[in-house]
Amino acid sequence: MQNKKAIILLSGGIDSATTAAIAIDSGFALTALTFSYGQKHAVEVIAAGRIARSFSMPPPLVIDIPARIFRSALTDAGLSVPKNRDTHEDGIPDTYVPARNILFLSYALAFAESAGARHIFIGATAVDYSGYPDCRPEFFRAFQEMANRGTRSGVDGDPFAIITPVIGMSKSEIIKKGASLGVDFALTHSCYDPDPDGLACGSCDSCQIRKKGFLDAGVADPTRYRHA
Amino acid sequence: MQNKKAIILLSGGIDSATTAAIAIDSGFALTALTFSYGQKHAVEVIAAGRIARSFSMPPPLVIDIPARIFRSALTDAGLSVPKNRDTHEDGIPDTYVPARNILFLSYALAFAESAGARHIFIGATAVDYSGYPDCRPEFFRAFQEMANRGTRSGVDGDPFAIITPVIGMSKSEIIKKGASLGVDFALTHSCYDPDPDGLACGSCDSCQIRKKGFLDAGVADPTRYRHA
Repeated sequence: MQNKKAIILLSGGIDSATTAAIAIDSGFALTALTFSYGQKHAVEVIAAGRIARSFSMPPPLVIDIPARIFRSALTDAGLSVPKNRDTHEDGIPDTYVPARNILFLSYALAFAESAGARHIFIGATAVDYSGYPDCRPEFFRAFQEMANRGTRSGVDGDPFAIITPVIGMSKSEIIKKGASLGVDFALTHSCYDPDPDGLACGSCDSCQIRKKGFLDAGVADPTRYRHA
Repeated sequence: MQNKKAIILLSGGIDSATTAAIAIDSGFALTALTFSYGQKHAVEVIAAGRIARSFSMPPPLVIDIPARIFRSALTDAGLSVPKNRDTHEDGIPDTYVPARNILFLSYALAFAESAGARHIFIGATAVDYSGYPDCRPEFFRAFQEMANRGTRSGVDGDPFAIITPVIGMSKSEIIKKGASLGVDFALTHSCYDPDPDGLACGSCDSCQIRKKGFLDAGVADPTRYRHA
């Protein structure tokens, strides 16, 4: 029988919520990891908890990473989150957080190996995204290869799988897939620069991509924007 | 001019102290990361600080990792550290900490990319060691490959190097090399299971390998053992 324990990285956004729904629909029993790394949108940690509850999962294990190791517009008070940027522009934007997915997946791997799980789900997408290098399929392949050399699985031959079910989907496809599996997107949070009440700015990369996704999917956008 | 900023993982032991000496001797300006992960030998964190000071480095950045993500004899109160084990025995011992070096290197990578460093030193050895999968050369090659796909360097072509200067040396060779570069081994700590005063047990894998290393190197062993 296939080992159906899996770890999922739950960020509180649309992509990881849909990824959770897909994993559950495939019969996996999920334990979630969520990270508090000094992000300006720390409200997403609360969203991750809401999403886990909506799927009857255990509460996410929330892991603290000190913000001082990162230099990024998402974590540095002195760097502004870019607004109304052309998200199709070439290059890596200032919101890139160095090695973030590498760190998150490393925690998932340590936890998975300790807990006897072999599947790790991450809701990365390489279609409607900000061009982060750690969201590309070639990165996930290289991480899986590394994971299977640097753990017991490199010796005993029971390999880890890093699973990215939405990596090839557009944002609207992810929203349609999630909606079909009963994801309540009102529970999710995407904005990089919310106000103190958690209301979305509407103009950062993440808001722009989210807005267009709901529009293209023909699904009502439940997001609460600051300037409604 | 070569970028001479580097990050080093400083554990407080012989191998990372010698690695620091080698890196400094090669002209690198080092910043150290040290980890507090619930290890029974947390006294090594203090040793890492002593070693950094002896090299006139800035104090190590100490990063906390919650012990609850690991299952290992080094972190679980309910699992004993094996004593007087045959360290040449096949298989991975209970002191293996799942994905530990993967996590440590991921932190180093995030910090290096944020700080504009491209070299990461780690004092792993694959000769006189406990057979941990995350100490083997093939793992470090895979990690470097992954790092160069999952960061800006994957896009801008300024690659990271994971440097393991002592990986092919025996413990006695490491001790001789460190001694020749002025490492004060009295500042280092190796024991997995020290008493509350930090005195070494003398019989865990790490103590056995250390003891034999000093003996083979013909260097006086400055370790303070519990049963002197």
